[in-house]
Amino acid sequence: MRITRFIDENGTVQHGIAQQDGTAQLLKGDIQTGFMRQDEQRQISRILAPLTPVNIFCIGLNYREHAQETGAPIPDTPVVFMKPTTAVNHHQAEILLPAACNHGPEVDYEAELCVIIGKTARNVAQSDALDYVFGYTCANDVSARRWQKHGGGGQWIRGKSFDSFCPLGPVMVTADEIPDPQTLRVRSQLNGAVMQDGNTSDMIFPIASLIHHLSQDLTLLPGTVILTGTPSGVGFARNPQVFLAEGDEISVEIDVIGKLQNRVVNAV
Amino acid sequence: MRITRFIDENGTVQHGIAQQDGTAQLLKGDIQTGFMRQDEQRQISRILAPLTPVNIFCIGLNYREHAQETGAPIPDTPVVFMKPTTAVNHHQAEILLPAACNHGPEVDYEAELCVIIGKTARNVAQSDALDYVFGYTCANDVSARRWQKHGGGGQWIRGKSFDSFCPLGPVMVTADEIPDPQTLRVRSQLNGAVMQDGNTSDMIFPIASLIHHLSQDLTLLPGTVILTGTPSGVGFARNPQVFLAEGDEISVEIDVIGKLQNRVVNAV
Repeated sequence: MRITRFIDENGTVQHGIAQQDGTAQLLKGDIQTGFMRQDEQRQISRILAPLTPVNIFCIGLNYREHAQETGAPIPDTPVVFMKPTTAVNHHQAEILLPAACNHGPEVDYEAELCVIIGKTARNVAQSDALDYVFGYTCANDVSARRWQKHGGGGQWIRGKSFDSFCPLGPVMVTADEIPDPQTLRVRSQLNGAVMQDGNTSDMIFPIASLIHHLSQDLTLLPGTVILTGTPSGVGFARNPQVFLAEGDEISVEIDVIGKLQNRVVNAV
Repeated sequence: MRITRFIDENGTVQHGIAQQDGTAQLLKGDIQTGFMRQDEQRQISRILAPLTPVNIFCIGLNYREHAQETGAPIPDTPVVFMKPTTAVNHHQAEILLPAACNHGPEVDYEAELCVIIGKTARNVAQSDALDYVFGYTCANDVSARRWQKHGGGGQWIRGKSFDSFCPLGPVMVTADEIPDPQTLRVRSQLNGAVMQDGNTSDMIFPIASLIHHLSQDLTLLPGTVILTGTPSGVGFARNPQVFLAEGDEISVEIDVIGKLQNRVVNAV
């Protein structure tokens, strides 16, 4: 099932299956209990991030070529950080270039497969881990590189936490439609030019391993999301470097899921 | 006002003002709108963390002597990390030593003043920052040191995120009762022995500065909490080192607020 969360013509938040004509067939339910088709249609007025996450875990340096392009060693355990839930952003909404980044360009894109946990997971074996996945969506782990390196004393979070820095969407696709999440092409495009073109088969720590690692003595509630790392081709590692600027169109496209699109503007 | 969140004799979550006799005078309201006294009493059956935080930001190395004892340089910007909301723990509840830490002792205490944001804060000037504070409570930033250093690829979160690793309480004290939060004695005691004995006057980045720093292009919603760093005397920096073990009693005591007490047990 391909689930869109949206605001309808009455201003109500709904879940539905988007149709070609700009309407959606309504769904009732939630991530924990699942969704059921209703015999009703609504107009999609605005698409929302497919969920409001409980907690947002992120994995750094999880594609071999990306680790290499940053100059970092290949990690022997997953590099784990977080974003605050206030950073969540929507398909076709604006990524805000922080006023706090006004010393010069530094804001970067990172195309990522986002895992959505559907069942409470704690101390999960790697062999069972995918049973806890509700579904998948696209994420852009927007990152202010100077703040990431220098604005948080070596901890990355502050540079990853600005408002609008976690676009998710456009839809969540339930796990049954992606039986093997390690075979998905992940791309980003900046103003139509391909910047990243990787495949989840290149992950150093596959999704089942990440769920196992994170869930050790740590409860992953339904609605927790995991951004699973980005392939090579990010802006700061290019020569010459590329950073996001006002007016840019950035997209993250993943097989089966679709294309998450955002426009970049200066924060006011 | 000194606000206790608790489960009453009917199993209902309540806010109230605790009395000597084990009851509480009920309060109605919330952090955003404020609390009003009601003409009702309830039995306190179990004390809860004074709130369920929206996001948990933490500051590292924010006391000069603590930065020195860890061997880290004095930071020139706040060291920012997070904990997931699933780590929240309660006064008189158990801190669980993770099974994932069963290679040997590594779990440490950190006594911290916890700031509770009461009004939506974004791009707040340092001079106005304390206006956004609802109140204060005690926190224990429980930390698995090996996981902090080696379990997250240099990012601290994974070692700070285990279930039960964020005790908060016993009460939240509204900001009007603490006009100057930079004059508070902060202590921890392990089985009755004082381990940390500092004062918030020693903070490298005072609370107003932290709110300013965090709120730059980042929305701090009401119910966001900030753990503001710990004084010297943590276990891993002692000689000989001290780590938490099953049966230990650890407390965090801060002027005006009170004493947050937890017992340590092995996770099952």
